[in-house]
Amino acid sequence: MTRMRAVQVVGYHQNLELTEVDVPEPTGPFDVVVKIGGAGVCRTDLHILEGQWAQKSGVTLPYTIGHENAGWVHAVGSAVTNVAEGDKVIVHPLITCGLCRACRSGDDVHCEVSAFPGIDTHGGYAEYLRTSARSVVRIDDRLEPSDVAALADAGLTAYHAAAKAARRLTARDRCVVIGAGGLGHIGIQVLKALTPAELIVVDRNPDALKLALDIGADHGIVADGAHVEEVLAATGGSGAEVVVDFVGEGGATSEGLRMLREAGDYHVVGYGENIDVPTIDVISSEINIIGNLVGSYNDLCELMVLAARGAVTLHTAKYALDDFQTAIDDLDAGRVRGRAILVP
Amino acid sequence: MTRMRAVQVVGYHQNLELTEVDVPEPTGPFDVVVKIGGAGVCRTDLHILEGQWAQKSGVTLPYTIGHENAGWVHAVGSAVTNVAEGDKVIVHPLITCGLCRACRSGDDVHCEVSAFPGIDTHGGYAEYLRTSARSVVRIDDRLEPSDVAALADAGLTAYHAAAKAARRLTARDRCVVIGAGGLGHIGIQVLKALTPAELIVVDRNPDALKLALDIGADHGIVADGAHVEEVLAATGGSGAEVVVDFVGEGGATSEGLRMLREAGDYHVVGYGENIDVPTIDVISSEINIIGNLVGSYNDLCELMVLAARGAVTLHTAKYALDDFQTAIDDLDAGRVRGRAILVP
Amino acid sequence: MTRMRAVQVVGYHQNLELTEVDVPEPTGPFDVVVKIGGAGVCRTDLHILEGQWAQKSGVTLPYTIGHENAGWVHAVGSAVTNVAEGDKVIVHPLITCGLCRACRSGDDVHCEVSAFPGIDTHGGYAEYLRTSARSVVRIDDRLEPSDVAALADAGLTAYHAAAKAARRLTARDRCVVIGAGGLGHIGIQVLKALTPAELIVVDRNPDALKLALDIGADHGIVADGAHVEEVLAATGGSGAEVVVDFVGEGGATSEGLRMLREAGDYHVVGYGENIDVPTIDVISSEINIIGNLVGSYNDLCELMVLAARGAVTLHTAKYALDDFQTAIDDLDAGRVRGRAILVP
Amino acid sequence: MTRMRAVQVVGYHQNLELTEVDVPEPTGPFDVVVKIGGAGVCRTDLHILEGQWAQKSGVTLPYTIGHENAGWVHAVGSAVTNVAEGDKVIVHPLITCGLCRACRSGDDVHCEVSAFPGIDTHGGYAEYLRTSARSVVRIDDRLEPSDVAALADAGLTAYHAAAKAARRLTARDRCVVIGAGGLGHIGIQVLKALTPAELIVVDRNPDALKLALDIGADHGIVADGAHVEEVLAATGGSGAEVVVDFVGEGGATSEGLRMLREAGDYHVVGYGENIDVPTIDVISSEINIIGNLVGSYNDLCELMVLAARGAVTLHTAKYALDDFQTAIDDLDAGRVRGRAILVP
Repeated sequence: MTRMRAVQVVGYHQNLELTEVDVPEPTGPFDVVVKIGGAGVCRTDLHILEGQWAQKSGVTLPYTIGHENAGWVHAVGSAVTNVAEGDKVIVHPLITCGLCRACRSGDDVHCEVSAFPGIDTHGGYAEYLRTSARSVVRIDDRLEPSDVAALADAGLTAYHAAAKAARRLTARDRCVVIGAGGLGHIGIQVLKALTPAELIVVDRNPDALKLALDIGADHGIVADGAHVEEVLAATGGSGAEVVVDFVGEGGATSEGLRMLREAGDYHVVGYGENIDVPTIDVISSEINIIGNLVGSYNDLCELMVLAARGAVTLHTAKYALDDFQTAIDDLDAGRVRGRAILVP
Repeated sequence: MTRMRAVQVVGYHQNLELTEVDVPEPTGPFDVVVKIGGAGVCRTDLHILEGQWAQKSGVTLPYTIGHENAGWVHAVGSAVTNVAEGDKVIVHPLITCGLCRACRSGDDVHCEVSAFPGIDTHGGYAEYLRTSARSVVRIDDRLEPSDVAALADAGLTAYHAAAKAARRLTARDRCVVIGAGGLGHIGIQVLKALTPAELIVVDRNPDALKLALDIGADHGIVADGAHVEEVLAATGGSGAEVVVDFVGEGGATSEGLRMLREAGDYHVVGYGENIDVPTIDVISSEINIIGNLVGSYNDLCELMVLAARGAVTLHTAKYALDDFQTAIDDLDAGRVRGRAILVP
Repeated sequence: MTRMRAVQVVGYHQNLELTEVDVPEPTGPFDVVVKIGGAGVCRTDLHILEGQWAQKSGVTLPYTIGHENAGWVHAVGSAVTNVAEGDKVIVHPLITCGLCRACRSGDDVHCEVSAFPGIDTHGGYAEYLRTSARSVVRIDDRLEPSDVAALADAGLTAYHAAAKAARRLTARDRCVVIGAGGLGHIGIQVLKALTPAELIVVDRNPDALKLALDIGADHGIVADGAHVEEVLAATGGSGAEVVVDFVGEGGATSEGLRMLREAGDYHVVGYGENIDVPTIDVISSEINIIGNLVGSYNDLCELMVLAARGAVTLHTAKYALDDFQTAIDDLDAGRVRGRAILVP
Repeated sequence: MTRMRAVQVVGYHQNLELTEVDVPEPTGPFDVVVKIGGAGVCRTDLHILEGQWAQKSGVTLPYTIGHENAGWVHAVGSAVTNVAEGDKVIVHPLITCGLCRACRSGDDVHCEVSAFPGIDTHGGYAEYLRTSARSVVRIDDRLEPSDVAALADAGLTAYHAAAKAARRLTARDRCVVIGAGGLGHIGIQVLKALTPAELIVVDRNPDALKLALDIGADHGIVADGAHVEEVLAATGGSGAEVVVDFVGEGGATSEGLRMLREAGDYHVVGYGENIDVPTIDVISSEINIIGNLVGSYNDLCELMVLAARGAVTLHTAKYALDDFQTAIDDLDAGRVRGRAILVP
């Protein structure tokens, strides 16, 4: 048995530690071991270190962190037929059962017995990761694992929300995107690819808005206090048919609801604050408040098609696996443009 | 010009008054004048008298109250082709324009320039009512106007919510109905007619639950403090795929959300309190909060088909128009079983 | 290794033969061996013996026939978690991969690499059958395998078509069912459970129509030559919003299309003849012709819920496994009322 | 009363004649008189002259031909509120009632009592046209009536089919467009705007394919006899999820069906030949054959948004109204690139 480097959570409110562990092997018939080509460093990783997920995940320390992974298939279990050694893959963040009602309906994210590598079992800040045949998506030759790794979770969440939002959008509709940061950036590109609706992007940062306009937004509105009124003005006073809120805190939810037209959809993606809305407002305007979790396996397949044709791109800052602490520090200090990726 | 009796709001915090006014005539090409066969006395009428709608409606006093109406076509404008004098009709509560985007999409409830007889213009506590060709639905010979009048607004709202909720319900799903009162009673019958899902009804009143079971509910759960847990137990611990909340106050919204399964739909129909829910809960369980207003013209047509075949029935207490004050007093004191109807 | 009785195809245009073979064992991790409680005898089995499927299935003789199976779980592979020994189950007719795009979308019937026990590999005219964890649906305690076996394929096909047809049906719509035989009989019960539409059933056999009315049809029309006109008359001259054709031969397709309203759906379930329709008719009336194959795993789960509550029932004639030839002969001679079931 | 020039059908198998008639006036409350800015010359107009529509339309000769119209509002009836004199508008080809079930559902094309100016009543080869408030769509300042007139019927049909087809298309799907002529040209642009699916265009004319690639098609395949196989090869052997057939004759329907993947949608738009398909093929591959008529009022509104932003454009050849015969002759002789437009 060979050994590998892995970056582990050894205690909460403590730094991660690089250690050496056994390379995982396929033990179940559907196991797939992936040689990591890139592992995204995500704000959730900071929250894990702060202990915010300790109780919810119930994970036993130490364990290897990292839930945004891509690479090459290294070994497969006896029953795996969809990938073979050497295949270039991105890894869906969940390991799902394939047998419960949700899995049988293509809604695997609500699998009744899923595992979440990097959160409740060993993840991808390492040289190898064990996942499942149901979690690996082969990617186009044109794509590199380290370029797309961050699409595995953050990007997939944005895709899922944008694709759900797009279903009702026609050329006459207006879609407001609140937040043009990491997720919003992907969401805008996906909305552009999937719908002819007019895209209005709201963000506090004028530079983020400039970037949003470059990748397809039709209007950029600075969130400077007058932005709800500006959205209403930009929609002829009526509000937008759809709002996708990638922020979910700092007042975004009540602002987002005010930007909404009668019978509109308000999509919750970002989170932090409470939604506090009178039932009379919900019924008299007949609006919908729609939750969004990470996307399904099918969503990831579709996102990879968009990525392969260059319709969805992401700026990344790459770090050697050994430099994990620098990556974490840079992220924490706001020094990363786009997404930080660890490359073993 | 002939004269007629009409019951009017003459001031807020004052009793209604019976007076004599001109019989309305069709002045516009699409006007329809209906001879009232029954006018529902609704809790909203009490709220109007308390002045709760004064500012919102902007109505000028005195005006004739009454927004749940059915009867016979008395006269029609020059361009009316869908009904003729003598036709038995129920009256959709809104007068809509037919030309805005909402009207052109079958979603006339969100018409940009609608009027609401009984709320912002003369209503149906009278011998005749002026409405529009777009608002009248011919009813089956087996139905009597005074029996179905209350379906025009309260029943239509319940139908609309139940029909929207039913779209995703299969035989494997569970639908919780919170509140087996006026609207809930209709909602249960509609759900029974439209979906094979299991119906779980929650109400404080054991008699209401007994009635609910008689008209098709599969389970009745008394709202006695342990009801959320009982719903969870009745759904194998997972919660229901859909909750339709006809109450919307007194804690019903947070209870309703707790009864919901992952990826479930919570339908808001009743109102009163605020929905106050952490965004993290909305996204981690990926639930939807869905507003419901009164139904469309198409909804009313469908409801009348169910009524004609006896699939939706309603208990009514009838009062002569002149006894309007008794009806109002009985409603206010909780002495009406089913719905009070004024018959001119 | 124990031995069991099995009825096999030993040659085309030859009688089936009872023989003794090894009891199958779970060899793959997801294999499930079912002790047969009942195996439906289907018209397709007659066609197999006539060699109609020889080339299409590519099966090697001899092999065990029988594709409508139910029973009890006898043994499971190492990775099976959804059923355990002793569980009462119905068996979905296909063994699917779980990994292709169709399987990942809940549309397992279009699996790219499926097997079909009884058609292209060993089936259920035997004491035991090997299938997959993805194919077994636990059934309610109230149901017996020999009573529901025929729902596994014929019933599932009818369910699938009826459930698809039901999606657009409201209380105002009319649904014509052509053919009240085996599949139509199930289809009518499913439509009744899933939709409030008016059901008009057309069949050559007045007794079948009588039965159809007993189980929920609203109108029965004898297919005596004037039936298209009678359907048009029963729909106010306009035709029905939906036609579900369980016959598909002897002129049913052109008749079915003539019964259709503008923008209507014509569902093909039965087969035999060609559909031959001018494109000008398809576009000028903007109709849809919709194919229907057997139902998905999810469809079978839903059908079993309806069966458990008695909403879908089926008359069966049971035969001992050793009397397989009598069952085949009775079916061929039209002596079976409902469905013939072999019980080992 | 003023007089105007109008080009009329005076007899079948005869040339059109320019004559002088009264300018139409709004006689009904919802009438709108449009000053024609452009009237499309359509192949259907040739068919009318050949008498192909004589019986179907029941029109009395002489009458003014022309069903693709755009211009400016000249006068409105007493109840018109959605447009005013001087508004630039495109004219939906149908005058619909607004009261039947189809109209109330946004599906006005299936109106039970519609009229069709240019086919069964006076059309737009004239200086003025009488239509209805329900038929006029205000267009963007950037658009000119003579540039968009041909989108009123031909373009609207293509939009309708493409938008229906697009509903199920994801980035992983392949959509085949058969025919890159007038309608197909619009269809390709609409599909490009509405869906991320891969577009494969099939046409006999290499120049048409070149143009198709310029406006967004991903692949062009010459219909030279091997094209079905080439489509299958381009889709990995499986066939396309959706085929939109703008040809409908000369073998296109059977070829289109062969290009289709299991569970695929074949959209009929062009017409001429019969669809002749075995029911066994329809059910075993579970395909859908979907009719497409001209688009709804809402479709036209959406198409005008795409046109305003330049996402859908059309080449036109303009002729003075008095040169109608040249336009007709050029169309008949195949000398028109794009669409011929009469400008009064």
